[in-house]
Amino acid sequence: MVSNLDFHSLLLYNPTTLRKAINALNNIKRIGVFDSGLGGLTVLNQICKYNEGLDIVYFGDTARVPYGTRTNDTILAYAEQDVRFLKKQSVDAIIVACGTVSSIAIDDLASELDIPIYGVIEPAAEAALNATQTGRIGVIGTPATIRNGAYPKAIKAISASTECIGVPCPLLVPMIENGYEQDDELVEMACRRYLSSFDGSNVDTIIMGCTHYPFYESTLSRLAPHITFVDIGTALAKKLPQLLNLYKGEKTHVEYFVSDPDTGFQAVANRFLDSISARDISSVNIEMY
Amino acid sequence: MVSNLDFHSLLLYNPTTLRKAINALNNIKRIGVFDSGLGGLTVLNQICKYNEGLDIVYFGDTARVPYGTRTNDTILAYAEQDVRFLKKQSVDAIIVACGTVSSIAIDDLASELDIPIYGVIEPAAEAALNATQTGRIGVIGTPATIRNGAYPKAIKAISASTECIGVPCPLLVPMIENGYEQDDELVEMACRRYLSSFDGSNVDTIIMGCTHYPFYESTLSRLAPHITFVDIGTALAKKLPQLLNLYKGEKTHVEYFVSDPDTGFQAVANRFLDSISARDISSVNIEMY
Repeated sequence: MVSNLDFHSLLLYNPTTLRKAINALNNIKRIGVFDSGLGGLTVLNQICKYNEGLDIVYFGDTARVPYGTRTNDTILAYAEQDVRFLKKQSVDAIIVACGTVSSIAIDDLASELDIPIYGVIEPAAEAALNATQTGRIGVIGTPATIRNGAYPKAIKAISASTECIGVPCPLLVPMIENGYEQDDELVEMACRRYLSSFDGSNVDTIIMGCTHYPFYESTLSRLAPHITFVDIGTALAKKLPQLLNLYKGEKTHVEYFVSDPDTGFQAVANRFLDSISARDISSVNIEMY
Repeated sequence: MVSNLDFHSLLLYNPTTLRKAINALNNIKRIGVFDSGLGGLTVLNQICKYNEGLDIVYFGDTARVPYGTRTNDTILAYAEQDVRFLKKQSVDAIIVACGTVSSIAIDDLASELDIPIYGVIEPAAEAALNATQTGRIGVIGTPATIRNGAYPKAIKAISASTECIGVPCPLLVPMIENGYEQDDELVEMACRRYLSSFDGSNVDTIIMGCTHYPFYESTLSRLAPHITFVDIGTALAKKLPQLLNLYKGEKTHVEYFVSDPDTGFQAVANRFLDSISARDISSVNIEMY
């Protein structure tokens, strides 16, 4: 029975908000995770590493990757289709493992959805704020991510006095996607170039603001040993139990869906994943959703 | 009046082939040129440089770039829309200034169309065969272009004894698109790496099998001064008067259309173009065609 006080509190909410609040208290039995392509696999990897026993549906929009070069309207429209597809897979919550969608479309998606949805920006901002001693945080990312300023915005929202410096690193994703190893001299030269942009800035913490970058974390750490590098996947994965009431089974179970099966997903996936492996990959025509 | 002989010859043709043959003899008053994005501008640039006074409609599919990572079916479907859009602009012939479409979809497009259509592969193959003394030709391109082997196939079709060695250069397009200059040490290191793959091969001619690469031609030529580099845009532009009965006006006129106007087309265009400049840029919803 609802008490008078509770009843009045409930009246303050609209039906969607209310449904969401109730759903957030529910056991989350099945989580949808999506990305524009492959990068989100590093987030998935960390989610599974820090939260064993989850039941996950991963969708990679390999037919329409990359999202970063699209207009905001197109990115939202794509993300809405991704979300509709995941809802059809009976997920109870959605994780946006895509930096672009997290920074551009998360509020719109959240307002349209009746289940919880979380992106990768806020947890990374919090982790960086916890790590910094100097109050100066760096962000490395794709040109689009740095341009839209999502990380500085999230950091300022928590701590207005913290300074934030963004450096675009346009070559790192192509290097990773084309198999350039972390000790390759081209990778080292590029990383050294990008890190040198922070010289004299007193930055002690750098958010790797792209889901691909953990692949070069060892190179970055070697070149800048005094910097704390924040992996957005790890930050989200560690935060997840606070965000959602996770139901954990005996064994982690991940189903994979991609919109273009011919893009070598499995091979790349197994380079990106270490706590799990990518089998059971199905194809989906995402334009239908 | 058609003579008996002519009449019998004509009977050998189906109506589409016939219409095409007649159209090819016609004055080509307006040419459509399309690419998945910006790279085709280097082809356009050469077309205008070697053929003054043309009336051209350029379409860059900036909303769906890059095509190289899509499936063949998707690439053909996209190209068909691009062609339908250009036909609506009353063009008399179409130039595919996109390596991916030229290598994958040109035969299908030609069989569907009633006006002439030409791609960038054959003219480049011919130019390389004319240039080589050793009978060994190299091709540099994106991983997708090298994988599909269109240039070796075109070369072998003309000269079966010519050896052809393809080397994928995955970093060059990202470097060019992100403004890395031709004397940048990262560009030099990447070019040196890619060219070293030809060491000991006796290759004396290399096709720059990507519309972006002319941007780094001076770097490549400096690092390998004894190699003849073939620019696919130049090869096509020089061949064009043999392929089409071009009508030339007093002044070159180019109209530009893009599918995503927010991608900084004009700025990049003016880096890619030297014989003309990019004004008069309109937006088109290509999914409608």
